Amino acid sequence: MEHTNNPVVGIVMGSDSDWPIVSKATEILRNFGIAFEVRVISAHRTPEPASRYATEAESRGLRVILAAAGGAAHLGGVLAAHTVLPVLGIPIAGGALNGLDALLATVQMPAGIPVGTLTLGSAGPVNAAILAVQILATSDDALRQRLHDYKKELQRKVEAGNAKVAAALQQETGA
Amino acid sequence: MEHTNNPVVGIVMGSDSDWPIVSKATEILRNFGIAFEVRVISAHRTPEPASRYATEAESRGLRVILAAAGGAAHLGGVLAAHTVLPVLGIPIAGGALNGLDALLATVQMPAGIPVGTLTLGSAGPVNAAILAVQILATSDDALRQRLHDYKKELQRKVEAGNAKVAAALQQETGA
Amino acid sequence: MEHTNNPVVGIVMGSDSDWPIVSKATEILRNFGIAFEVRVISAHRTPEPASRYATEAESRGLRVILAAAGGAAHLGGVLAAHTVLPVLGIPIAGGALNGLDALLATVQMPAGIPVGTLTLGSAGPVNAAILAVQILATSDDALRQRLHDYKKELQRKVEAGNAKVAAALQQETGA
Amino acid sequence: MEHTNNPVVGIVMGSDSDWPIVSKATEILRNFGIAFEVRVISAHRTPEPASRYATEAESRGLRVILAAAGGAAHLGGVLAAHTVLPVLGIPIAGGALNGLDALLATVQMPAGIPVGTLTLGSAGPVNAAILAVQILATSDDALRQRLHDYKKELQRKVEAGNAKVAAALQQETGA
Amino acid sequence: MEHTNNPVVGIVMGSDSDWPIVSKATEILRNFGIAFEVRVISAHRTPEPASRYATEAESRGLRVILAAAGGAAHLGGVLAAHTVLPVLGIPIAGGALNGLDALLATVQMPAGIPVGTLTLGSAGPVNAAILAVQILATSDDALRQRLHDYKKELQRKVEAGNAKVAAALQQETGA
Amino acid sequence: MEHTNNPVVGIVMGSDSDWPIVSKATEILRNFGIAFEVRVISAHRTPEPASRYATEAESRGLRVILAAAGGAAHLGGVLAAHTVLPVLGIPIAGGALNGLDALLATVQMPAGIPVGTLTLGSAGPVNAAILAVQILATSDDALRQRLHDYKKELQRKVEAGNAKVAAALQQETGA
Amino acid sequence: MEHTNNPVVGIVMGSDSDWPIVSKATEILRNFGIAFEVRVISAHRTPEPASRYATEAESRGLRVILAAAGGAAHLGGVLAAHTVLPVLGIPIAGGALNGLDALLATVQMPAGIPVGTLTLGSAGPVNAAILAVQILATSDDALRQRLHDYKKELQRKVEAGNAKVAAALQQETGA
Amino acid sequence: MEHTNNPVVGIVMGSDSDWPIVSKATEILRNFGIAFEVRVISAHRTPEPASRYATEAESRGLRVILAAAGGAAHLGGVLAAHTVLPVLGIPIAGGALNGLDALLATVQMPAGIPVGTLTLGSAGPVNAAILAVQILATSDDALRQRLHDYKKELQRKVEAGNAKVAAALQQETGA
Repeated sequence: MEHTNNPVVGIVMGSDSDWPIVSKATEILRNFGIAFEVRVISAHRTPEPASRYATEAESRGLRVILAAAGGAAHLGGVLAAHTVLPVLGIPIAGGALNGLDALLATVQMPAGIPVGTLTLGSAGPVNAAILAVQILATSDDALRQRLHDYKKELQRKVEAGNAKVAAALQQETGA
Repeated sequence: MEHTNNPVVGIVMGSDSDWPIVSKATEILRNFGIAFEVRVISAHRTPEPASRYATEAESRGLRVILAAAGGAAHLGGVLAAHTVLPVLGIPIAGGALNGLDALLATVQMPAGIPVGTLTLGSAGPVNAAILAVQILATSDDALRQRLHDYKKELQRKVEAGNAKVAAALQQETGA
Repeated sequence: MEHTNNPVVGIVMGSDSDWPIVSKATEILRNFGIAFEVRVISAHRTPEPASRYATEAESRGLRVILAAAGGAAHLGGVLAAHTVLPVLGIPIAGGALNGLDALLATVQMPAGIPVGTLTLGSAGPVNAAILAVQILATSDDALRQRLHDYKKELQRKVEAGNAKVAAALQQETGA
Repeated sequence: MEHTNNPVVGIVMGSDSDWPIVSKATEILRNFGIAFEVRVISAHRTPEPASRYATEAESRGLRVILAAAGGAAHLGGVLAAHTVLPVLGIPIAGGALNGLDALLATVQMPAGIPVGTLTLGSAGPVNAAILAVQILATSDDALRQRLHDYKKELQRKVEAGNAKVAAALQQETGA
Repeated sequence: MEHTNNPVVGIVMGSDSDWPIVSKATEILRNFGIAFEVRVISAHRTPEPASRYATEAESRGLRVILAAAGGAAHLGGVLAAHTVLPVLGIPIAGGALNGLDALLATVQMPAGIPVGTLTLGSAGPVNAAILAVQILATSDDALRQRLHDYKKELQRKVEAGNAKVAAALQQETGA
Repeated sequence: MEHTNNPVVGIVMGSDSDWPIVSKATEILRNFGIAFEVRVISAHRTPEPASRYATEAESRGLRVILAAAGGAAHLGGVLAAHTVLPVLGIPIAGGALNGLDALLATVQMPAGIPVGTLTLGSAGPVNAAILAVQILATSDDALRQRLHDYKKELQRKVEAGNAKVAAALQQETGA
Repeated sequence: MEHTNNPVVGIVMGSDSDWPIVSKATEILRNFGIAFEVRVISAHRTPEPASRYATEAESRGLRVILAAAGGAAHLGGVLAAHTVLPVLGIPIAGGALNGLDALLATVQMPAGIPVGTLTLGSAGPVNAAILAVQILATSDDALRQRLHDYKKELQRKVEAGNAKVAAALQQETGA
Repeated sequence: MEHTNNPVVGIVMGSDSDWPIVSKATEILRNFGIAFEVRVISAHRTPEPASRYATEAESRGLRVILAAAGGAAHLGGVLAAHTVLPVLGIPIAGGALNGLDALLATVQMPAGIPVGTLTLGSAGPVNAAILAVQILATSDDALRQRLHDYKKELQRKVEAGNAKVAAALQQETGA
């Protein structure tokens, strides 16, 4: 099972209710053939597992950590405090402030403890996964090649969208 | 020295640069005769001391914790994660967002791990100290009496301000 | 009936429409065996009852006050103006600004009159109740012990969530 | 002394530090020959004087109340709660949020207890005073005539500004 | 028909789609027996009628103008530019920014041309109408008395809400 | 087919999902008899087509470009970077920040590379199209005349709205 | 004098205090040899001149209007209401909200009455002027050529900045 | 000279005025012995160099790109559009919105084209540099070791701050 066999990417989320959103990241990693693992760990409700996870991540062979959390989203920062691995933050939209709190609490880290923060909203987990692949690809030429393929696929989707709109427009104007 | 002799209030700040602001809290506590201690501990740069401090706070005799931090202000939340003592948050204004990030990162805690958050700005440390005194006064009638005195003093200051404006106005209108 | 028998926590809300949200606080207090009372009092529509309630709270034996209000949420501040008991603010989300107004109107109190403010959104009443319990527990060892139990329960819920996601993931990957 | 002799406009401010800003309102009222009075009363630090002032305002002959406050600016709302006189709110800029809190805490009143809110910033006290004059002028034709004169004066100032820019431009282009 | 017979309050809204919201203001005025009129006039799409309406309002016997608009809500300001009558602004929530734009565009008027701004959201038209009544009542003792009655009614509603919650609570706890 | 035959307005959108919104712009242009073309081009996913489109726009006979995008809406800026034609930005509402990001990312261009930005929300594509017509009309008197007709039509709609509300009001008051 | 001799661009600002900022627009226009005129006209203090200016602009030969205003910046909208010429809005930063009010009040126009809005801040007048030139250049090939030259100049400035940083870096590293 | 000899990190900034801020990133990289290069390239004023730089970055041996820009900060996105290397965004504070625009324009990238965004404010360039080192360290054990040393140094600084405050406090209390 690719996601537990010597995972190199660790995905941590603050609550299992975030899973439907965060699972978009696992889809991407699976498509790129990246071994990953997923954990529900709360910075506030399970602080020991959180610090233990981050502290042991390096020696367990992880190379990148993704942290998804909403509200006063401290998860990314708490993990980054305990590791020198790159930590990427996925602010989860929702709540009364719709994630503005999560975005600021994730990105506004003090000097020395970075959390590379991705898009607030549904693009967030996708982009965190792609950035994780890009990071792994800095020492993996084959993987980098697959990123070029992915980029082309994105282009094809836009071109397909262009064709779709062209068709809609033509129909409308009764050509 | 009242602030080290069996302190009951622990004041933690994320950086020593916050001291000029946080010291307003110590002034209040001193005036009320509350033994306190002060620590510079960063949730992100010294995470072990942070969790240790909060974990041991109860057994060390502390009864209330004040946490002052700016930016992605995780300090209050990180301390609250490790203790059942009341944790009061002092969001520090400053930086590009002038503390809006600190306010949201402090107050928007998930269900079960509260951080009682005070005013963003110079009133913050004063109000955190007063709330700490109010908390201690829930089981100390004499202390509660002193809070009534403090309230009267606040009234007197407003009345003095009123007299000052009346004088300014009278002079202006040349009475 | 525990909530009227010598209540030590007074819960005040600005409108009965806030009851479904505020009732989460009563659930918590009941679970901790804390005697409480609930009142609908508006800072603006029933100002005399508001000031009377806060003024008499101390002599009536209350030890902590919770104030829930939305919009220009003055309730916490108005109660705090009339008492030296700790006042905890629950900003109610909703309205055109979705509670940002309630959060700021609750937390931005002037120096000397603190309102300890909790999460804007559904976690607010839960956290206000827990902070109230923590405050009462500063002079009640048994209660503090129950807070440790509650903390463990929170951990168990996160661990259950972790197991749930692990199962979902395993099923997905067809292990 | 016009401002104490049977005043019809009551100006209340939360702190004497607001006086330099609020005094712009008194200037306007004086120019229109409106008798006024000025008080420093804090909704939070002197709540009894605040409610008493508003409660007695009507019988004391006041016809409009102006309330200037910053931060969690409850003053306008607290006064409006105790009177049926029109209450006009002057949100004071300043503090970490530069008055956004004061604006929202003043304007977002619940249904039934209005506070007519004026500009956040230096135009606020001027506009509160002018609106007060306009209110008094609804039953005073002579006063309304003076408002027409004031409006013409505003026009003249803009025209003078126009001439100034024209001159600056001409000089620049060396005509 | 009271609302056309020598109206003293003119209600202007920028679009007929605002009618369901603005009609709450007419209900209040009707209950107070205030003669009013209603117009749909857009500051941007019908600028001449807008300026004409405001210019003629005084001579037509109007004494207060209410202006309801959303988005770049210029209506209040445009009317205020052409009259010395009190203009009260009702910012309409809605659109991508949910009325924050309407609130700021209504309240942030320059010195000399006030728009007394009421609550953003459903309380807005109610509060604008009440403030209009309060303004008219500055020279009408009977009307002021009815405002006292209205205030008592508001109190009774809150007390009824209090009873409702007490009942809900009692049922819950199975008294 | 008017929209492909020597188009003078080029409409570019970042994703085909924006088509339902953007199509409001094409309706306007069609009503004014302006030849236009529509493209789905993403600044980020199809950067070469984006720069090529803008670079060639002038020589292909386009005279105005409309760019619709959401989120980190770079499309208008990227197109403006490659052309001296007027570029009009349509920030698309949606996502966690509901388009505030799109508005700021479109309008806050550096000195020298303007993007004329229109309303965030449903009025955006309509206004971008009208501004495009106004631009073309700066050298086309007949077109300018049609803009005057359009303005009258807008007035008629407001007047119809006025009649509708008058009728609703009359019915309500049972005249 | 080029700026009064048959001007084709009309620059209107709400207050002569905006002149130091707005003058950046005149510099650009002068460099491009565009005849322009400058007026100080307030939408609120001089509403008749405002509507007259916009109404007569077309027949007076103007082809583009620039409107600069701060606060509840209605100027662009008020001018656009009275003309079919393109109106470009320059929101002026400043005041308690530092121009966020001006940005929203300028850009959030209702459907049918566009104001093409430029950068909030010092880039605003420059970009409004450049967009005006781009609009005029839609029917003036020579002018369009000069815009290409301007674009090259912008590039040269960036390249000069690049060289400057390279030099600074080299010196620092002591090459 | 380490920063030009086969650089592996490319630092791009939109304007040479950002250099004093961005130079903090170069300091970090130098301390870690990472070869880097610095370029001033504007996404809007020099779009071809921008796309060329990103397109060639991979073949030129770069492994991470840092992009610093303010306002409608498109630089990170534009570079990310042309490369599969990790792109890290440094939003530059400043301007009327003090960098909120830069933060949102950098982080809110669409799905598939991530920009890992760092702190808005002075911590931004430091954190971008550290994250770049962390990325390079995913395939460089020695570098990862140095990151552990850096983390210890951060701790020592906090401890030094703690000692400093302790001393200040002791002096104050006259021990």
